[in-house]
Amino acid sequence: MKIGKVVGSVWATRKAQCLQGQTFLVVQSEGEQIVAADQVGAGVGDRVLLATGTVASRYCMDAPVDAAVVAIVDGKEGQ
Amino acid sequence: MKIGKVVGSVWATRKAQCLQGQTFLVVQSEGEQIVAADQVGAGVGDRVLLATGTVASRYCMDAPVDAAVVAIVDGKEGQ
Amino acid sequence: MKIGKVVGSVWATRKAQCLQGQTFLVVQSEGEQIVAADQVGAGVGDRVLLATGTVASRYCMDAPVDAAVVAIVDGKEGQ
Amino acid sequence: MKIGKVVGSVWATRKAQCLQGQTFLVVQSEGEQIVAADQVGAGVGDRVLLATGTVASRYCMDAPVDAAVVAIVDGKEGQ
Amino acid sequence: MKIGKVVGSVWATRKAQCLQGQTFLVVQSEGEQIVAADQVGAGVGDRVLLATGTVASRYCMDAPVDAAVVAIVDGKEGQ
Repeated sequence: MKIGKVVGSVWATRKAQCLQGQTFLVVQSEGEQIVAADQVGAGVGDRVLLATGTVASRYCMDAPVDAAVVAIVDGKEGQ
Repeated sequence: MKIGKVVGSVWATRKAQCLQGQTFLVVQSEGEQIVAADQVGAGVGDRVLLATGTVASRYCMDAPVDAAVVAIVDGKEGQ
Repeated sequence: MKIGKVVGSVWATRKAQCLQGQTFLVVQSEGEQIVAADQVGAGVGDRVLLATGTVASRYCMDAPVDAAVVAIVDGKEGQ
Repeated sequence: MKIGKVVGSVWATRKAQCLQGQTFLVVQSEGEQIVAADQVGAGVGDRVLLATGTVASRYCMDAPVDAAVVAIVDGKEGQ
Repeated sequence: MKIGKVVGSVWATRKAQCLQGQTFLVVQSEGEQIVAADQVGAGVGDRVLLATGTVASRYCMDAPVDAAVVAIVDGKEGQ
């Protein structure tokens, strides 16, 4: 997974029907911005773990998303 | 997902049979161009969310595509 | 998908048995070379659409390939 | 797979329920940091092999993770 | 697929149980090193085709690997 920081959110009215009710956060991770579905209640400023790919979709009830916030990081040890 | 901007489209007559009827948009996203199947009716100039990988294929009835427009972005909050 | 240009081909006698009969094209796409299975009859000089990942394998009857030519591009509109 | 070096760990209390009990290591690999689930008992300083994507999730009982430590490298021969 | 050159191998005693018996080669491909399971009998100096992702795992009897050597390249035509 990538570690990133939530820096904002996006919203969309015209979208795939199965995306209704999903919250989309903008996560900054090592120089790139990723939009991820959130199901753990993260907010701007939180450090989060992102899972990407089919894994994220499965976690979000098979919605057509390829990135999901799966954890809010409390601490990091090491370099 | 990636956020990108629709900058054009491509067409092809010789293609995988299961791609008949798909619309292909060219999306510019952080310095790279991605061709994505569109099923939400996006057009040139729209800001869109792209899902990539197997997720995109499943969303497009298992067609051999690895990127799909899943939403047209109305707004973005934050940095 | 990526847009690329076919610049050559590769051949191999020692390979996974399920790769017998596959044609492998070398496709140049935004600075990198990708070897892709071809099932639409593309040739050197053609501009093509590449699907990558599990999607490509499924399109090639579950052969162990992670890139496939799925269309020959006739035209591109926009920037 | 990627070869990397374990440089630390992360912890999280608010997370996907199916991540309970997973250990997350921070692995440095060719200039990027990846957070990977560990099931082989690796520790800081170990050189490890990482599997990524759906493969990692399946190895971790379908948990929403996209990277897993699958081996601790004892030796490497060649350049 | 990527074309790469086998430059070495790695070995590991502590690893996922389902990795027993797999041979791991280090393949250099366009500036990055990838560790790939080998089932075609490649050796140091060989030019090979790599399949990555879930495709590689399926080819290796669902072992937790995300890269596999699927062919030894005999020749390459074109640029």
